[in-house]
Amino acid sequence: MINGGENRKSGRNIKLLVAYDGTDFHGWQKQDGNASRTVQGALEDALRKMHKTQVNVTGSGRTDSGVHAVGQVANFYTNMRGIPPDRFAPALNSLLPSDVRIISASEASADFHARFDAAMRTYRYHFIGGRILLPHESRYNLYLRRYPPIETLNAYCRLILGETDCSMFAGAGDASKSRSRYISKAGFHFEGGRLIFEISANAFLWKMVRSVAGTFLHYGEKGANDRSLAGPTLPPHGLFLWKIDYYRE
Amino acid sequence: MINGGENRKSGRNIKLLVAYDGTDFHGWQKQDGNASRTVQGALEDALRKMHKTQVNVTGSGRTDSGVHAVGQVANFYTNMRGIPPDRFAPALNSLLPSDVRIISASEASADFHARFDAAMRTYRYHFIGGRILLPHESRYNLYLRRYPPIETLNAYCRLILGETDCSMFAGAGDASKSRSRYISKAGFHFEGGRLIFEISANAFLWKMVRSVAGTFLHYGEKGANDRSLAGPTLPPHGLFLWKIDYYRE
Repeated sequence: MINGGENRKSGRNIKLLVAYDGTDFHGWQKQDGNASRTVQGALEDALRKMHKTQVNVTGSGRTDSGVHAVGQVANFYTNMRGIPPDRFAPALNSLLPSDVRIISASEASADFHARFDAAMRTYRYHFIGGRILLPHESRYNLYLRRYPPIETLNAYCRLILGETDCSMFAGAGDASKSRSRYISKAGFHFEGGRLIFEISANAFLWKMVRSVAGTFLHYGEKGANDRSLAGPTLPPHGLFLWKIDYYRE
Repeated sequence: MINGGENRKSGRNIKLLVAYDGTDFHGWQKQDGNASRTVQGALEDALRKMHKTQVNVTGSGRTDSGVHAVGQVANFYTNMRGIPPDRFAPALNSLLPSDVRIISASEASADFHARFDAAMRTYRYHFIGGRILLPHESRYNLYLRRYPPIETLNAYCRLILGETDCSMFAGAGDASKSRSRYISKAGFHFEGGRLIFEISANAFLWKMVRSVAGTFLHYGEKGANDRSLAGPTLPPHGLFLWKIDYYRE
């Protein structure tokens, strides 16, 4: 499905910055022979209405069911003429459901690839601790009974910086050949009355962010008697795909 | 419907601090002979399950369809014994839909009345200007094409402070006898990347907050050639009942 259609590298290459509320989606990736609502599917539906033909969309990577995005990046090829690249944003927004928004659209070089050219992915997890979540917070923040000491959390974060074997953080269904990843940033900080976990890496294993955050919060709360044991994988709400950095545009 | 049931002033008087996401409610007030989903109705349903009988709930005031709350206050009388007042919060939360949460519950004096004893009501309106709203923002913020100059907005706000005839801000269906209200605070400020309008008064006319905010933003954008003309009444999302202050507890 990765941009393998007939329109590959034919026409202009449009790069999209995409935000979505993951609550009502079964993740990013379109599922063959399955009617589940996905973000990629919603984008291709909108592009099909615009182009009167199938247009394949390539994303920087999958996000799981329930995970939100404010900085997903995708690209597609178009043969539509006469429409300036930035006008694809309002045109697509008028065709998309309200839980997906195109923040911006621009023309990329002909061989720009949203997945292969991504140098670094950044995720953010939002936590609220010590009080009940208000209804307007509960889709976008995860409840913690209390905040563990932030210095302890950040001491654990420092252990995974750099080239790291991430096997212990892989979801049970992860099919990656290598489980080594380059983690360029990992840390907790308070912002806007929330605890935020931010992590950047060249790539992530399946459910890895939810496992890393769950493990360090578990260690921070209960102590890390055995650092080879991962803590719980956290639920997806509260997690945002925040930003993708590219080698080139 | 105002606490006029058989349980009036019988038993303990429990005061609730209530938050809700107004998106899927037809406002606070239960509507006779109407199956619309309301917050008061949801609370009375939960109390009925707990008490096995009808329990009437009094709110500090109505909120319109779509308006959110983080600081609504309500009270009810209970004959349940042996349950400490603060335990009503988790007990009710386990029976309420997820878009209504009891933040806290406490025992008030026998004649405390959530509406008649309210000295001041505070509302907040959240605006995001100059950029597209992200999906996770669009339920709780109102889009502005751009931010008008904040000093201009606040100059208009100062005109309505104190005892003010609010007729021009009344919704078409407002049935109030007097349209004079005491406005103790009104102002715009930036917070967390948003423009916030905060207004406090002894009471508000129907749709008044949405009209005041809409009028001042319209004046700020277009100029106020005729200050007797109100601007548009704004949509309800983005508006929160923020806080109720009481003469006594």
